[in-house]
Amino acid sequence: MFMHSKKLQYPSKPNKPDALMARRMQEILGGQWGEMSVMNMYLFQGWNTRGNEKYKDLLLDTATEEIGHVEMIATMIAHLLDVAPLSVQEKAVADDPAAAVMGGMNPQHAIVSGLGAAPRDANGNAWTSNYIVASGNLLADMRMNVTAESQGRLQVARLYEMTDDKGVRDMLGFLLARDTQHQLQWMQAIKELEEKEGLVVPPVPKAYEVEEVNHTLYNFSEGEDSKKVVDGVNAPDGKPFNYEEVPKAFGEKPKLKPAPKEVYNSKPVDM
Amino acid sequence: MFMHSKKLQYPSKPNKPDALMARRMQEILGGQWGEMSVMNMYLFQGWNTRGNEKYKDLLLDTATEEIGHVEMIATMIAHLLDVAPLSVQEKAVADDPAAAVMGGMNPQHAIVSGLGAAPRDANGNAWTSNYIVASGNLLADMRMNVTAESQGRLQVARLYEMTDDKGVRDMLGFLLARDTQHQLQWMQAIKELEEKEGLVVPPVPKAYEVEEVNHTLYNFSEGEDSKKVVDGVNAPDGKPFNYEEVPKAFGEKPKLKPAPKEVYNSKPVDM
Amino acid sequence: MFMHSKKLQYPSKPNKPDALMARRMQEILGGQWGEMSVMNMYLFQGWNTRGNEKYKDLLLDTATEEIGHVEMIATMIAHLLDVAPLSVQEKAVADDPAAAVMGGMNPQHAIVSGLGAAPRDANGNAWTSNYIVASGNLLADMRMNVTAESQGRLQVARLYEMTDDKGVRDMLGFLLARDTQHQLQWMQAIKELEEKEGLVVPPVPKAYEVEEVNHTLYNFSEGEDSKKVVDGVNAPDGKPFNYEEVPKAFGEKPKLKPAPKEVYNSKPVDM
Amino acid sequence: MFMHSKKLQYPSKPNKPDALMARRMQEILGGQWGEMSVMNMYLFQGWNTRGNEKYKDLLLDTATEEIGHVEMIATMIAHLLDVAPLSVQEKAVADDPAAAVMGGMNPQHAIVSGLGAAPRDANGNAWTSNYIVASGNLLADMRMNVTAESQGRLQVARLYEMTDDKGVRDMLGFLLARDTQHQLQWMQAIKELEEKEGLVVPPVPKAYEVEEVNHTLYNFSEGEDSKKVVDGVNAPDGKPFNYEEVPKAFGEKPKLKPAPKEVYNSKPVDM
Amino acid sequence: MFMHSKKLQYPSKPNKPDALMARRMQEILGGQWGEMSVMNMYLFQGWNTRGNEKYKDLLLDTATEEIGHVEMIATMIAHLLDVAPLSVQEKAVADDPAAAVMGGMNPQHAIVSGLGAAPRDANGNAWTSNYIVASGNLLADMRMNVTAESQGRLQVARLYEMTDDKGVRDMLGFLLARDTQHQLQWMQAIKELEEKEGLVVPPVPKAYEVEEVNHTLYNFSEGEDSKKVVDGVNAPDGKPFNYEEVPKAFGEKPKLKPAPKEVYNSKPVDM
Amino acid sequence: MFMHSKKLQYPSKPNKPDALMARRMQEILGGQWGEMSVMNMYLFQGWNTRGNEKYKDLLLDTATEEIGHVEMIATMIAHLLDVAPLSVQEKAVADDPAAAVMGGMNPQHAIVSGLGAAPRDANGNAWTSNYIVASGNLLADMRMNVTAESQGRLQVARLYEMTDDKGVRDMLGFLLARDTQHQLQWMQAIKELEEKEGLVVPPVPKAYEVEEVNHTLYNFSEGEDSKKVVDGVNAPDGKPFNYEEVPKAFGEKPKLKPAPKEVYNSKPVDM
Repeated sequence: MFMHSKKLQYPSKPNKPDALMARRMQEILGGQWGEMSVMNMYLFQGWNTRGNEKYKDLLLDTATEEIGHVEMIATMIAHLLDVAPLSVQEKAVADDPAAAVMGGMNPQHAIVSGLGAAPRDANGNAWTSNYIVASGNLLADMRMNVTAESQGRLQVARLYEMTDDKGVRDMLGFLLARDTQHQLQWMQAIKELEEKEGLVVPPVPKAYEVEEVNHTLYNFSEGEDSKKVVDGVNAPDGKPFNYEEVPKAFGEKPKLKPAPKEVYNSKPVDM
Repeated sequence: MFMHSKKLQYPSKPNKPDALMARRMQEILGGQWGEMSVMNMYLFQGWNTRGNEKYKDLLLDTATEEIGHVEMIATMIAHLLDVAPLSVQEKAVADDPAAAVMGGMNPQHAIVSGLGAAPRDANGNAWTSNYIVASGNLLADMRMNVTAESQGRLQVARLYEMTDDKGVRDMLGFLLARDTQHQLQWMQAIKELEEKEGLVVPPVPKAYEVEEVNHTLYNFSEGEDSKKVVDGVNAPDGKPFNYEEVPKAFGEKPKLKPAPKEVYNSKPVDM
Repeated sequence: MFMHSKKLQYPSKPNKPDALMARRMQEILGGQWGEMSVMNMYLFQGWNTRGNEKYKDLLLDTATEEIGHVEMIATMIAHLLDVAPLSVQEKAVADDPAAAVMGGMNPQHAIVSGLGAAPRDANGNAWTSNYIVASGNLLADMRMNVTAESQGRLQVARLYEMTDDKGVRDMLGFLLARDTQHQLQWMQAIKELEEKEGLVVPPVPKAYEVEEVNHTLYNFSEGEDSKKVVDGVNAPDGKPFNYEEVPKAFGEKPKLKPAPKEVYNSKPVDM
Repeated sequence: MFMHSKKLQYPSKPNKPDALMARRMQEILGGQWGEMSVMNMYLFQGWNTRGNEKYKDLLLDTATEEIGHVEMIATMIAHLLDVAPLSVQEKAVADDPAAAVMGGMNPQHAIVSGLGAAPRDANGNAWTSNYIVASGNLLADMRMNVTAESQGRLQVARLYEMTDDKGVRDMLGFLLARDTQHQLQWMQAIKELEEKEGLVVPPVPKAYEVEEVNHTLYNFSEGEDSKKVVDGVNAPDGKPFNYEEVPKAFGEKPKLKPAPKEVYNSKPVDM
Repeated sequence: MFMHSKKLQYPSKPNKPDALMARRMQEILGGQWGEMSVMNMYLFQGWNTRGNEKYKDLLLDTATEEIGHVEMIATMIAHLLDVAPLSVQEKAVADDPAAAVMGGMNPQHAIVSGLGAAPRDANGNAWTSNYIVASGNLLADMRMNVTAESQGRLQVARLYEMTDDKGVRDMLGFLLARDTQHQLQWMQAIKELEEKEGLVVPPVPKAYEVEEVNHTLYNFSEGEDSKKVVDGVNAPDGKPFNYEEVPKAFGEKPKLKPAPKEVYNSKPVDM
Repeated sequence: MFMHSKKLQYPSKPNKPDALMARRMQEILGGQWGEMSVMNMYLFQGWNTRGNEKYKDLLLDTATEEIGHVEMIATMIAHLLDVAPLSVQEKAVADDPAAAVMGGMNPQHAIVSGLGAAPRDANGNAWTSNYIVASGNLLADMRMNVTAESQGRLQVARLYEMTDDKGVRDMLGFLLARDTQHQLQWMQAIKELEEKEGLVVPPVPKAYEVEEVNHTLYNFSEGEDSKKVVDGVNAPDGKPFNYEEVPKAFGEKPKLKPAPKEVYNSKPVDM
């Protein structure tokens, strides 16, 4: 069960409106790596965790914080859209250099959301749960979480460079810091889980794997730049990497049976 | 530029057809973590890499191998669909226990793809590039790559348990092994990149970040299970984690300006 | 069965081309609340209606009109795209204030649809049947219909303010009027259906519902602004609303069983 | 800012696992009208509200409750998936009538989410923000909210009939009751807003609308069943409805200009 | 403007309900190649046609017929869902061989659409305008139209084999026939357009094309099966095909500039 | 199995960066008719082909070439994004006419892909396998292939006109030429397949089809422009077309049974 406080976790107000920045800011709200993604991903991972109460709680604590981040960015976008030029008068200012930016405004911010934030990315794509994962395997999922916080923080840093508005930068600076914490805490969890379950996800019975090919880098191109990554190097699990200059085809050319006639595929000529 | 060999990288033929297994196998072909995802993700990451030739080559070598894995699984699915029951005669066998499985067949395998593999997941969802990322930041992307190989291998392991067909298991065993290699090689690259650029992606000027909150876990629930992950622990970057039992709201309740009347929002009553 | 008349229901021709307005106009054609949505929604609701011939006919009459509205807006967009600047010469006019708008043109209007309307919204998102519903319950669906006409008319009103082109405004004025009629007719149907089936959709046996919580507003935040909506007020069904300042948790903390090992979830540490 | 309590708002535990019911239950979690939709919709509507604190608070109180409903259903699904038949042994039970249901299980519950709930509907479609709206116009949005609660409650009632598991029914009975409250509270808000702003959304200057067609039902088919809805009836705004047996075409057949040659459209033959 | 007749173009009633066939039938209603696709595609192509009245009329005549086909199939699906087993009693019949099929029913037919047709495919994927095209180039679009009628008719033929219900087969037989006509009429239009504009779409100034490679098949694999298609054959435009056994790379290995630092890409090591 | 050469099939480097052209170029990379579509479509068609080795090889040879085309365009886009204006300094140049274009840049090129190409179209829509088909029927699929090459080449031609950059035009000229070859080779295959299997896809037993309507064009509008296409003309299969001025309704008005009460549809009033 959840509770709401009317205060924001951190102030989220720009010094002045900026409709183009509002559009860009949508990316970290409803984009692939935006706050909606981490919020929903941590919620589902937390709810699906079976046992492992400390990770379950860590996931749900962080998820709950992220709901508040979605709130902060939605609020920021609404502020950035204050006084956005909407009506026919905008044409009057077409000589104004400021008008140059106007074509770049997201038209749906006016027509669809009435100067509010939308659950969409910087190009207006709807948020979709295709962006997230909750697999039941904590190590696999924690790796996704570090990824999400890395990609997300990268986007925040890029946005930071795109504005000199003090208010916007202040909020982005807070997000940069929280993403630092989140990257570090998921790395910490990974460290513990790898010690317990091994590096390679998931641990399977030895007999399952075709072992001869599980430490080999195949060179699928002419030239051997990739060799530098593995040459004379032990893999993170301590065993040496191999490098094969010319990949071997273990299988033959496949032969599929013709389809039964009631499927109405083309009839084979040459079989 | 690419070249095709008609041989398969590894044999991909079941001992007998199994339409339900064909449906499930679609997940590792065209699902979120299937081979189409890693193939396309590594291609785009490779093509977008600026400098760093050894990683570029590593990405493209692996991407090229993955095209061959898509080929192997597509071939396996086509074999699994040989002699799938399609026509009205299937009703005649409804008393047969084998018929129990029939309702679970993917109807599009018959109607749409004519007993061939589809670029879709186990529930028939189209593959979408929403599943992948190529951000230009190699460390952020390599973390996604480890994630993808972890989630993918997890699904392969689950599929392995769902069948006792020797041919299917043999191919899955090959994929398990290659995913081991791929997890390890991306970990290796991460290790190098972290040494060079630091743990937290991306490195930003110190002044950008609100530093007081970048090593703190906030407890957003009653109870403190999550504390166990950070209590007395140094974060992976060597600095100690903090734990705050009661998260502080730094921001006030937000106040948005009323919208201009030409947006036709509701008029505020109480402002 | 349907028939086509070559005349338009209402004139749909702008006084002059305007590629930016063409982009915006797409929202009421192929957006979430555009004419494609109401056209398809009323068609499916009508076709799925079992009995209730007068509503079935009302739905199909209105649906048939909406096909004509899609036609009108598609025609308007094609006219707005006449003489859109496309070729390399456009660069020559980059000094021209008119060029300011050019960046805002939808590139797919040139590249994909060859100066024709697209079944997409103002940001180029494909129309999807996710936007619509036909549930078989007429009261539930009529509520969606009032919603769709309200959201749609709101967008038409916003577009009206964004242009002073007489031709465009004339057609939008026609749509405003028809949406008035449509809002009113669905409200009329709702009134009749509510009288017959009750306010709350759907009527279920009394024993199904946990009755003690079906007239209570829970206050899930500090502060009690929301209380003003229900305090001392009878609900539309005549029974008084309750207000609970502190929501009660009826359930305990959930405990999930560990997963069987063949699922390869993380092993629980602490169970 | 949000807080999490580890207790559930209401108990969410079935008497016994049921993988087919788990699949169906996904509809009210991640489907078009599921709890994820109302949770996200009320959050965005609340955050985007400018002034009107009592409605803002009502939206956010209800949104916060809905996060808890998502939690309850996710928990229920995880319980329903306990001991789901996954491994190759399932084939052994194919003679068992129980096996009949097996083909109907969602394969992604095993392969993708490891026996956890997914943010998806009963057919495995990803949740998308295309399902929701936050337009800035409270009356338009409240109508969507009544719709969502009506469609949602309808689905809950249908699920109730599909099971006789006491635990599942108990939770569904709670949701039925809460949806009753939510339908009633949004209706109450609509009543207030309609009194203030009028029935037809949004109120526009009289001159905008082509008034002669805003109270007319056009009969777009042979036969006049639809006439019964409006004949001799005053519309909800008090003015009489008109009925036109033969709809008039106000517009002419459209004539589009040929496209410039650099668009490479087909050349017109007959112009 | 459009008109509706309450009669169906052809009878659409099965001899008996069949929930599994209802699910499959969705493919030709709301799938990639279903009637919704051709209906919407021909409408948009017709509306966007500039000049060429005979093709515009042909497109809109056929589009209008297709609306009636959507109506026929929606009606058929509703009939197929009459008396579908929905409530908990279905479990009682689990011993019944008929129950084998039950797992294969589309759960959304009960939960979402209340035994009505949905604008979705056989796996429940929403229809999307991504399936269609209206490019403004009639020859390019007519080729899509022949494709759509070919793929669609193929699916109808496959469905025909999957049932022995006389009523269903009768309606499918009508669709087979109409698709024959539609394939032939689009071929006829293509013939005329090719005579006028040439075979290759679109005709461009000769100087634009790198002419040396426009009649050459490159062999991108070992083995030369593909040679048989072009060897000693004149292309449809009368010029001879070439065959290159070893494709030449005209371009060099690409070198991308490093990104500016404010994008926070990885720093290049080796440049 | 596939191999990669580090050289490009053709040079792909613009004379100077152009962020707006980069956005437009995305259409032929990740749009409906872009290179990702043909690459994936030919791969799946090839892998699913049962027998017919020469077509299988033709499909896979061409698919393999297309992977290289995706590579070329991705490389071109990365070059076009070199030195794109990203940081806050861009505001300084807002008086500059060049700034006019800036609003039209794809914000995700900076924020998401770090100046790299994305697997998306010109409006930022994710690539989806909904764009492609592999039906198992070669004639149906070859028709799609000619369509794809026609639509794709049309878009390349339109892009050619939008730039005067020599480098960009040179690469587009190469694509124009290869698309000529590909259109011609699929036409050649169609010719062979039609000779073998007939014009209408697929050939079904004569008894299946309602023969009286399979060579008739129905006039679903007033006016008879469409008659010109078929009047006195033999269809491509040699039989004469018919033309019906007034289409006949073969079916009656449908009557659906009321739904069982446990579906909670509206109760019929008038049955």
